[in-house]
Parts: sequence; C-alpha cells; structure tokens
Amino acid sequence: MDIILSKSKKVKTELKPLVKKIYLEIEPPCLNDNQGDVDRIKNNIMKQLPHLKDVYISLHLLRSLPSICRTSNWKVTVTLHEHEKCACMINIIPGQDTHNYWGLAADIGTTSIVLYLIDLKNGNVIDFESGYNQQTDFGEDILSRIQFAEDIEGLSALQSKIINSLNIIINLLLNKNNLISEDIPVICLSGNTTMIHLFLGITPSNISRSPYIPAVNDPGLIKAQDVELNINPFGVVYCIPSVGSYVGGDIVSGILASELYKSKQISVLVDIGTNGEIVLGNSDWMVACAGAAGPALEGGVVDFGMRAEEGAISNITIIPKTKEVKFKTIGDTKPKGVCGSGLIDCIAELFLNGIIDRSGNFIKGHSFFTIVPAHKTSHGKEIIITQNNIKNLIRTKGAVNAALEVILEGVGCKLEDISNFYIAGAFGHYVNPESAIMIGLYPDLKRDKFVHLGNSSIEGARLALLSREKRDEIKIITRNITYIELNTNQQFMNKYTSGLFLPHTNLDAFPTVKQKLDSNKIAE
Amino acid sequence: MDIILSKSKKVKTELKPLVKKIYLEIEPPCLNDNQGDVDRIKNNIMKQLPHLKDVYISLHLLRSLPSICRTSNWKVTVTLHEHEKCACMINIIPGQDTHNYWGLAADIGTTSIVLYLIDLKNGNVIDFESGYNQQTDFGEDILSRIQFAEDIEGLSALQSKIINSLNIIINLLLNKNNLISEDIPVICLSGNTTMIHLFLGITPSNISRSPYIPAVNDPGLIKAQDVELNINPFGVVYCIPSVGSYVGGDIVSGILASELYKSKQISVLVDIGTNGEIVLGNSDWMVACAGAAGPALEGGVVDFGMRAEEGAISNITIIPKTKEVKFKTIGDTKPKGVCGSGLIDCIAELFLNGIIDRSGNFIKGHSFFTIVPAHKTSHGKEIIITQNNIKNLIRTKGAVNAALEVILEGVGCKLEDISNFYIAGAFGHYVNPESAIMIGLYPDLKRDKFVHLGNSSIEGARLALLSREKRDEIKIITRNITYIELNTNQQFMNKYTSGLFLPHTNLDAFPTVKQKLDSNKIAE
Repeated sequence: MDIILSKSKKVKTELKPLVKKIYLEIEPPCLNDNQGDVDRIKNNIMKQLPHLKDVYISLHLLRSLPSICRTSNWKVTVTLHEHEKCACMINIIPGQDTHNYWGLAADIGTTSIVLYLIDLKNGNVIDFESGYNQQTDFGEDILSRIQFAEDIEGLSALQSKIINSLNIIINLLLNKNNLISEDIPVICLSGNTTMIHLFLGITPSNISRSPYIPAVNDPGLIKAQDVELNINPFGVVYCIPSVGSYVGGDIVSGILASELYKSKQISVLVDIGTNGEIVLGNSDWMVACAGAAGPALEGGVVDFGMRAEEGAISNITIIPKTKEVKFKTIGDTKPKGVCGSGLIDCIAELFLNGIIDRSGNFIKGHSFFTIVPAHKTSHGKEIIITQNNIKNLIRTKGAVNAALEVILEGVGCKLEDISNFYIAGAFGHYVNPESAIMIGLYPDLKRDKFVHLGNSSIEGARLALLSREKRDEIKIITRNITYIELNTNQQFMNKYTSGLFLPHTNLDAFPTVKQKLDSNKIAE
Repeated sequence: MDIILSKSKKVKTELKPLVKKIYLEIEPPCLNDNQGDVDRIKNNIMKQLPHLKDVYISLHLLRSLPSICRTSNWKVTVTLHEHEKCACMINIIPGQDTHNYWGLAADIGTTSIVLYLIDLKNGNVIDFESGYNQQTDFGEDILSRIQFAEDIEGLSALQSKIINSLNIIINLLLNKNNLISEDIPVICLSGNTTMIHLFLGITPSNISRSPYIPAVNDPGLIKAQDVELNINPFGVVYCIPSVGSYVGGDIVSGILASELYKSKQISVLVDIGTNGEIVLGNSDWMVACAGAAGPALEGGVVDFGMRAEEGAISNITIIPKTKEVKFKTIGDTKPKGVCGSGLIDCIAELFLNGIIDRSGNFIKGHSFFTIVPAHKTSHGKEIIITQNNIKNLIRTKGAVNAALEVILEGVGCKLEDISNFYIAGAFGHYVNPESAIMIGLYPDLKRDKFVHLGNSSIEGARLALLSREKRDEIKIITRNITYIELNTNQQFMNKYTSGLFLPHTNLDAFPTVKQKLDSNKIAE
C-alpha cells in the first residue's frame, strides 16, 4: 500500500510503519514436535516474514508468552519492530487483533506540541490534538531552558514537564477515540535538539556553550517505559535524529517533507521559529546552519504576541492616506493579540507608510503604535506594538539574513541560483510573503519560488512513522548534511549588523521593495 | 591469547570473553569538529574495533556520558558486549580501567550452586565458592519445584530463592576479592531447563505435563537488573541454552566440555543427577534423552544421604568373610552420612557379598544394613542403608539403563560401538566405576573408555564466558541435537522394568560382573 505525503508535496511512498502487527495461527506442540514456545513463535513469525534472520523477545514478554499461547489456543497477534534483518517483539496478545493498529506522530516545539493519531493500516491521520509545552513555566526560550537544566533537579523538572505535556495530549486522543495506552505500540517524535535532550532527560548544557556539542544526535529506539510516555510500556519511541546542536530533528523533518534532497535544483529551507534554521542544498550536497534568531516571533515574547489561534490578528494593512488599520483575525472573532504573521504585516506596513524608518525607529518619536483600540478588542485593552517589539523582530530577521548570506557564500551560490524557497513551521502558514520581503525577512525572489510547508516537523514524524524508505532517507540526510556553526562565526556577526535595517543595508538586493517604497513616495 | 580447557581435556581456544573492555583516548570536540558526544565515542570505538557496524548505547548510559567524558578529559574505559557485528555499551567509566576486568561463571544445580570468579584478561579462575540452592526449602526435586511454581506466588518465591542463593555467593566472592558489584559486567549460567526458567521467573509448568514443552530454550542475553543479580545492573546474563525440557544447558555444557561433538568416534555422555540425561553421538549426529532418574543419588533423599563434602562416606568395601565394612570419608573425618559414590559402592558390595539379591531385597528379611555403628559416627547415630534406599537407587539405575538402550537402539548402535563414556557432574568424581558397573548403572565397557568430566556444567559456563568460538559451537550443538522424549515412550517403560535387577535382567550384558559373582560363589 502506498501513502501520500500531503500538503505541499504529493509524494508516494510504500506503507511500512515502524512497527508491524501480524496474526499467527500456530500448530500447537505435541510429542512429535516439542520445540520450546519461543522457538515455535519465532519460527511462525519467520515463516510469515522470511526476510528476518532473528526475533528478539524481552524477558517480560517471555514470562507472559506460555499462558497467552495456551489460553488463545495458539492464535495470537504479535507486534514487532524490525531493525536491519532482525525484529524485536513489542507485544503479544491472544486472538486476532490486527485491526487495532495505531501509532502517534508528534511535533514537540519549544512553545507548543502537536500530536497525530494515525491508523497504521492505511497511514491516515484519524485525529489530532495540540497544546502548550508546559516547560514554558520555566522559561520562554531555549537558552533559558538550557540554563534551567544546568543542575539535575532542573533537568528532571523540565523532562517531567515535556512528558506530562505529551501525556495530557496522548490521553485526550486516547479518550476521544476509545483507545487505551496499550493500543499504541509506537510514537515518532520530531523536535529541536534541545527538546529531544530534555525529553530524554539528557543534559543539554553543552549545546549552549562553545564548541556547542549535543550529547546525542540519534538516540536510537527508546522503550516507552524508560521515558514514562503513556503508550504501551514496551512500545518504541523514535526521535527523528538531529544534525547538530541547532539543526534538530524538526529541520530534518522539514528536509524530508520538502524533498529538497531529491532534486538537482538548489533549494533553501528556512524555519523561522526560535532559532532561524536554514538549509541550502540539492540532491548532491546540503549545508545547514542556525542563526539564533531568538523568539521574537513566538507568542509570549512580544507584548501582545500569541500563537496563531482563534483571536490572533494574522493580517494587517494600513490605509496609506488615513493610516487606518485594517486587520483579519483567525476565526473572525474580536482580536486578542497578534501572531507572527500579523507582526510581520504590521512592521512591513509601518515601514511602507513611513511610520517607522529603515532602522525600525518611530519617526515621530513615539514608543508604540496602536493596532486596535481598547473598545474593539476581546479583553478591552488596546493592542499595541512597541519600539522594543519592532527591534526584536529586526534582530531576528537580521540573523536570518546573515545566516542565509553566510551559507550562500560558503558554497559559492547566489540568490538567483535558488529554485525553491521552502518555509517550514506553522508560522509560515499565514505569512504574507510580500510583507516578509518588505521587511527583508525573505529574500526578494520571484514569488512562485516560495513554498509554505506548514508544520513540516510533524509531517516528517508522520512519514518516519509510516515509511521505511523515509527512515532510510533520514539516515542519508543526516549523514550527508554539513553543519556550519555560526555562534562564533565573525563573518556572520558582520553580516548580522548589516541586516539590522529594513529591508537591509543593501537596498539593491530588494528591487521590488525599492520599487514599492519609490511609488509610495510618489503617491504621497 | 589462548585459554585451555582444563580437567579431562586440554583444548585451546582463543580468549574472546562475552564482554570486552577497551580504553579510549578521545580528541575533545572543537568548533571544527562538532560531532555529538555519542557519535564521537562510537567512532572511537569503531576505530579500535573496525569489524563493528554499529554501537548501541542505552538511555541510562547516554545520560551519564557527557559528564563522564568531560570530567575525564575524554579518557574513558568502555565495556562492550558484541553480538553479530554490533556492540552494546554496558558501562563507561572515567580513565584507564582495563586491568579491572572480571566475569562470573555459575552452575545452578537443583541442590547446589557453584560460582567461579574469572579474570577476563587471561581466563584464569581466581576464586570460587559454592552453596546450597535455597529452593530446596520448597521441595527437594525438580518435579516438586515445578508443582510449587504452578501459581505466580510460588514461581516468584522460587525465583527469589535462586537469585538470593546466587547473590549470597556473589557477595562472598566480591568481598573476598575486594571487588564491588559494578566491577562485574557479565555472568554466564549453566543449569537444567527448569532451573533457568525459575531463575528468569518464567513458568516451568509445561515442562512437567505432556507434551513437555519448555517456554524457552535460548533466552538470549538478559540485563542483570532485570533479574536483580548483584553484578553491574547493566551487565549481561548469558544462560547456556537448553535442548529440551529435560536436556538443559548443564548437559550442553557437558557436551562442550567433553568435545563429544568434535570426534568421529561415537561417545556417550551421562549425567546421573536428578534426571539421568544421556547424550549419544559424534561430529555428525547427536541424540539426547532424559530418563527421569529421580533424585536417589542426591543428598537429602536417602536417609543418610549427603553431598560429597567433608564427613561423607565416599568409598565402601565389605570384607567377604567377616562382612566387616571398611570405608573412607571425604576429609578423613568421622562419618556423617553417605554421598552418591558411597551409596553405589555400598549396594555393589551388598550384592557381591550376597547380602541383597538381584532384586535388591535383603536376603535374610532385614529392612536395613548398618554401615557404621553409632559410636563411630560424628553425630552418635548409626549410619544405615534401608531397603527403601536400595530400591530407589535401583529405580534410578533402571531408568539410566533403559534410556541408554532406547537411545542406542534408536540410532542402531551397539554398546561396543561406544568409544568414550563421559560421566558428567560432581557426582562422578568419587564413583568407583567397578561398583557402578556391578550394580548396572554403567555399562560393562572396557575401563579405559570411562572419563569423569567433574563439574562439566560450570566448565561449560566458563568456556562460554571466555570463548566466542565455544559460544558459536553451542549454537551448532543445540541446533544439531535430536531430543527424544521418554516420558511417554512405551519402549522405555518396558526396558525400565527389565532394568530393575542387579545388574540387569540380562546378565550376559555384564560379563565382568558375571565373572565376579561366579568367583565370589566359588570363594564361599
């Protein structure tokens, strides 16, 4: 059976989930056939799956196996995880139970978590839920979490928070779909390197200090009970491997979802979340780096910042003559705050209308701009954008600019060599590319080169859960990618400083922006 | 380095223990070499062991690895277990520690347990200890233990007892040699099928009821903490695999120690312990069966029976004219009881001297025979052998006779085809073959064909611990051996009945016995 990579790309791949469930009708033992129970089960599995060389059964399952085989009259359903040419048994239950075949895919972000409940029989996402990452109680951004995890109590507290956050959403999905945790033998997780360290209870300390080394990029398969996830305790937890301290499994997921690594054309993938990761490459080579963009675009950092959910202002325009603000909210409700795309729109419009200058400073010496007056908001407080909020966003975009320039120069490429500009993250979903180009966050490319991938982190987790081909491709991607550390890169620092202008010090690199600014001046 | 299989056979094999300890001096990470810690360790291991394809590191070790690497300035000692072309890391400790390299080999018998502490650097047994199997509190023989383990509480109690028994001896060895449990990364166990089931907490119920099926013959590698053995909790526990319900790992050990499977000559291996296991074969084929001999030869069943230890009467002769008893005790102390070899001597002498008849009945209607009068024993009670004790031993020898006949007929062999008659078990050590032949327990072969292997169960465990070649040979042995179930075999039952005479119904099969009986009659 084939599954289809939906959203931006329609790619077929064979359905081969991380775990396999098979039904066995076994000839019971007799005096002329006195194989041990385990050998009998193994031989029957290998008859169905002749490519296997061996099957491993844990001591726990070994203990329950004799009675399960006999009470079911040797009709059992086993769940297996295959690795190379061997398989590990995850579960054995009496009778025919292959219809009950589920898995989870998860995106664990610094701020929020998304989970898919997936039917492993056909690869369909049958339900999904999302929620906040409770770690935000101990710090909004990655660096403050790493600091908090410096001692063992802090690390343990952050691990509990992320696991608790996941378990709450898992329980929600289980309840909604009349399932129990034993029904879920597998979960596939995608997240940045620090998140995966915290999830596994491994110190992320060395990620934030030179020379910026993760403890592990590919933790391999983890048993669910070892991290106390509320799925089958003997189920497997697969974390999409990372490439380096600041290019995590979430970015590898993005590469997988974009199929950047499959085309001869040169493409860029950017994820402007917490760190502003950038990948450049094609089927022959790939380089990646992270610009330490900072959390300017995540809810909670900007005064009225919020996630892209109901009540968030996602689009803003300012009428040039009246300076009146027009906006759209998600769900068409009264506005509560501004999400990332609204923020970008807002700054682009403030700039285009001459309310802020190229440095992002309010021209008339104001310290903020009112987007929505108090009487029109859901909470009765006016929604504003401050000078500080604007400066923060400019720093983020400066870091992205600089990282892109460094990485392009590093491989001797020019902007015009880029055939596709993939934007990863839920963030990109509502962004108006014209605004992003106006403030210089996106390069001034032909508009048809921009591809919004949506939440490609969970898309990668879904693919890895369902497709062996994709899991093999992940290995190739992580092996072939070159990671450039920008944390102490002087070239990056120089370019970053040049990028702290709207859209950039070098206005010639943004011809369509220049044109709009010129025509706006003429209009005035 | 080569190790030598001592005792009966002097066979060399390459020293390749179940675990490997290597010292790594690792180049610390820097900005130009930003591999993750795990990849750095793995790559350094694979540089030293280039045949490896991958190295697995458990989550627990993953958690401690970053700080161990840094506090030791990237000089660490790792302990690995290799399987096929992969390795699992068992331990990582700071600094150079390859001199501290120990393993344990254990024989877990129904009655007693023996442990060797082995230096894995050279394969030397540097200390050993033994003790009783505390399971005897819940039953002397295998069948009563299986019955006791019928419910989960009984199983759990028996598992605790065997593990407690092992831990007591392990702690004794550790204390005597100034070691701690973390120093021991591996233990290799040899025992009968039921003992291994009980040790692992797996029900042995189906071993004793038709069609006599063990849950598992080869449990694979177990983590020490999963059975709460007091060695390194991440250490590996390897159980010598069994062939069937009544041909266990202890017999496979005996086959290994005898090298029966390597010669073109046909040999027999017998272990007259609880079950009277017999193996017949050569380098081309092997058959095995168990005669359910019963515990007649184990201490505790016979009135004055005891283990072959200080104070045990190990040899007995009766002066034909005076009927005076001459005996030897182990340690030359006052006698406490009679061990297996003394019992065999006693019955042989009673028979030869016409005190019992060919059915084992006292000729003069007595119900017992005094071996040592009360004033000459260590406890002041007379040491006797009862009619019942004699009948028990005759049943045991009848079962062994019958099993040997069935197995020989099964493959179309005759007694004279046997080139070597290996006797396994500590039991055989003191046995006088003349007495064993006199009562018909051993066949009447040329005396130079008898080879006492001593405790070949622990010898097999030692070899498997130290030699990869031997572990591979174990796989071949268990795969190639044909197991014959005698429990419901009618031919066996018929032969058993014929075997309940001294030395056998068919006296012609025992020409040297016949000769002795004849010359004794002439003497009288």
